[in-house]
Amino acid sequence: MATSGKVIRCRAAVAWAAGKSLSVEEIEVAPPKAREVRVKMVATGICHTDEHVLEGNFPDVDFPVILGHEGAGIVESIGEGVTSVKPGDKVILFPLPQCGECSFCLNPDSNYCLKSHLTEPQNLMPDKTTRFTCKGKQIQHFLWNSTFAEYTVVPEYTLAKIDAAAPLDKVCVFACGFSTGYGAAVNTAKVKLGSTCAVFGLGGVGLSVVMGCKAAGASRIIAIDINKDKFAKAKEMGATECINPQDFKKPIQQVLTEMTGHGVDYSFEAIGTADTLIAALASCNMNTGVCVMVGVLPAGSTVPIDPFLLLSGRTCKGTLAGGWKMRDSIPKLVASYLEKKFNSDLLITHTLPFAKINEGFELLRAGKSIRTVMLF
Amino acid sequence: MATSGKVIRCRAAVAWAAGKSLSVEEIEVAPPKAREVRVKMVATGICHTDEHVLEGNFPDVDFPVILGHEGAGIVESIGEGVTSVKPGDKVILFPLPQCGECSFCLNPDSNYCLKSHLTEPQNLMPDKTTRFTCKGKQIQHFLWNSTFAEYTVVPEYTLAKIDAAAPLDKVCVFACGFSTGYGAAVNTAKVKLGSTCAVFGLGGVGLSVVMGCKAAGASRIIAIDINKDKFAKAKEMGATECINPQDFKKPIQQVLTEMTGHGVDYSFEAIGTADTLIAALASCNMNTGVCVMVGVLPAGSTVPIDPFLLLSGRTCKGTLAGGWKMRDSIPKLVASYLEKKFNSDLLITHTLPFAKINEGFELLRAGKSIRTVMLF
Repeated sequence: MATSGKVIRCRAAVAWAAGKSLSVEEIEVAPPKAREVRVKMVATGICHTDEHVLEGNFPDVDFPVILGHEGAGIVESIGEGVTSVKPGDKVILFPLPQCGECSFCLNPDSNYCLKSHLTEPQNLMPDKTTRFTCKGKQIQHFLWNSTFAEYTVVPEYTLAKIDAAAPLDKVCVFACGFSTGYGAAVNTAKVKLGSTCAVFGLGGVGLSVVMGCKAAGASRIIAIDINKDKFAKAKEMGATECINPQDFKKPIQQVLTEMTGHGVDYSFEAIGTADTLIAALASCNMNTGVCVMVGVLPAGSTVPIDPFLLLSGRTCKGTLAGGWKMRDSIPKLVASYLEKKFNSDLLITHTLPFAKINEGFELLRAGKSIRTVMLF
Repeated sequence: MATSGKVIRCRAAVAWAAGKSLSVEEIEVAPPKAREVRVKMVATGICHTDEHVLEGNFPDVDFPVILGHEGAGIVESIGEGVTSVKPGDKVILFPLPQCGECSFCLNPDSNYCLKSHLTEPQNLMPDKTTRFTCKGKQIQHFLWNSTFAEYTVVPEYTLAKIDAAAPLDKVCVFACGFSTGYGAAVNTAKVKLGSTCAVFGLGGVGLSVVMGCKAAGASRIIAIDINKDKFAKAKEMGATECINPQDFKKPIQQVLTEMTGHGVDYSFEAIGTADTLIAALASCNMNTGVCVMVGVLPAGSTVPIDPFLLLSGRTCKGTLAGGWKMRDSIPKLVASYLEKKFNSDLLITHTLPFAKINEGFELLRAGKSIRTVMLF
């Protein structure tokens, strides 16, 4: 039964233009239309993707816009036809929809959905209108999430109900960063028990890869970063060894091959440069090794790959949101969290009140935070 | 029980130097030493790899040498400790050993063996001596096969006993070309029932990929070549559609994506150029597509890959001899052949008496043959 009704006036962080700070403003949030849900946000992470938009480096986003796509909250009201959630439910919103009806959603091996931003920009709701206004102006949505607002409206297929016991200020990171890294290990690479893994880059996503490798039962997890300050946390999350490429004269792929005999079973690139991708590919076993690309390289770049690295049998693959079908998987990830199968809390280095969102972005730009969570 | 004994005098095609024709000469073949087998050759294919050696483009091969690595014959005698074959057995020799003892052989997911040429050049037998002499000179072995000789000596782990009913002039191609293409589909890509495949390049290996896709139950097999004369044979082998990129103004990846909705499930590159590898990768489904690299690119080349082709989920992988553990698999492939699960005979376009081996190479250089088999 639909519960939608009045317009809500609340605060949101509006991005009026690329290159400018966010501006916390009063906005109006219209009620949800059919198959839409209005959510009272409780917590939202700040992800590099939000920063990419502010830098003008994210495709097909229009300004003014309300960013944010790593949020958790409580359903305030539902539009007609919504069946999976009701007011009062705890939910996580995510940027990769799962409509459940398209050819990708119907394919059990796929986690893409034809309702995703890559196929159909999500700056307006599916009916091509916005639910946000500010100072008389229409404000665009972002990835059908727009979690940098006290209330947001999203299509039903971009959220999932989670266990009422889940702490929303912790599990909000499952919407994007944590799931991508953790899933890269358990879904995309399918790390096996007793295997050896190498993780290049120990930011939030790389550390989530480390947790995924550990959860999958890898017996050796070699964490690689040029910043040794990150090693303590990596070890806390499951890394068995931490190495800094700058400590060696040999290329890191040679170091890793010598450390492991014939290369690692699985390597993960979580930085986003061509050099580290090539090093990660060369570091894995020439015949059975799997290299998973998690980091995002600059648009328009190419990676000059030596075909002989592949020809002897190696696999190179990418991961989209860690390979999860989000709506099906997020509640299960929350259940695993509550069973303490992993400790994603370690990723959250800072929490700030929502009004200080620009401070959160400053921490990210300065490389001082792994994940900053904004609390409403 | 070892049966080795006297030196055999017989004919062989000796490659005295790069850039010269083979010379059919009388040679002496020493008896097999411990764990070695002397084989009376019955048939051998000519592969592009043999030609690459003659061009001087194959690493770590010394002259004079007896080439050939796609042979079948009958065991003449065995050295001490040989247990898997006895004189009179029909065998196939293969260029990728399976010693059964190294870490790769013990890994069920690997088909590499540390006794392979990539790790340890196979120009001499494992005891670092040769079994061949000609005009008083020592002649090198090639990939521990040297099938261009009436008798050859090989380590036990580079051959397998096959069904006595097998026609050796047909199944010799299982040693290399056929197995690589067929296995790329059934082992490396693991083509699923009802899937859609695209095969770039319709030489012997590409046509073997087509057969593998058909055997795996693909419902749509799109064969791609700029030479339409190859289409009839591709259709005979299982291709459901044949297209020539030169018939389209659009890039072939766009044509294939439009033909299939969202790209093929599996694509195979069996030519060996960077452009066709990129096209094959871009032709498969952005999220679940698997591109298998079968063609060999020039040494030292690189392929400039757009990372976004991978980031959305695609997989790019290579295949080593079609992913088969050769000694375990060759007898099974022969059994499948005898059960008519595929018709690899279609690959063999020419047969010639062994003395005409240089004519066989001319057919290959002129692009007139798919496979030429030399009969002893």
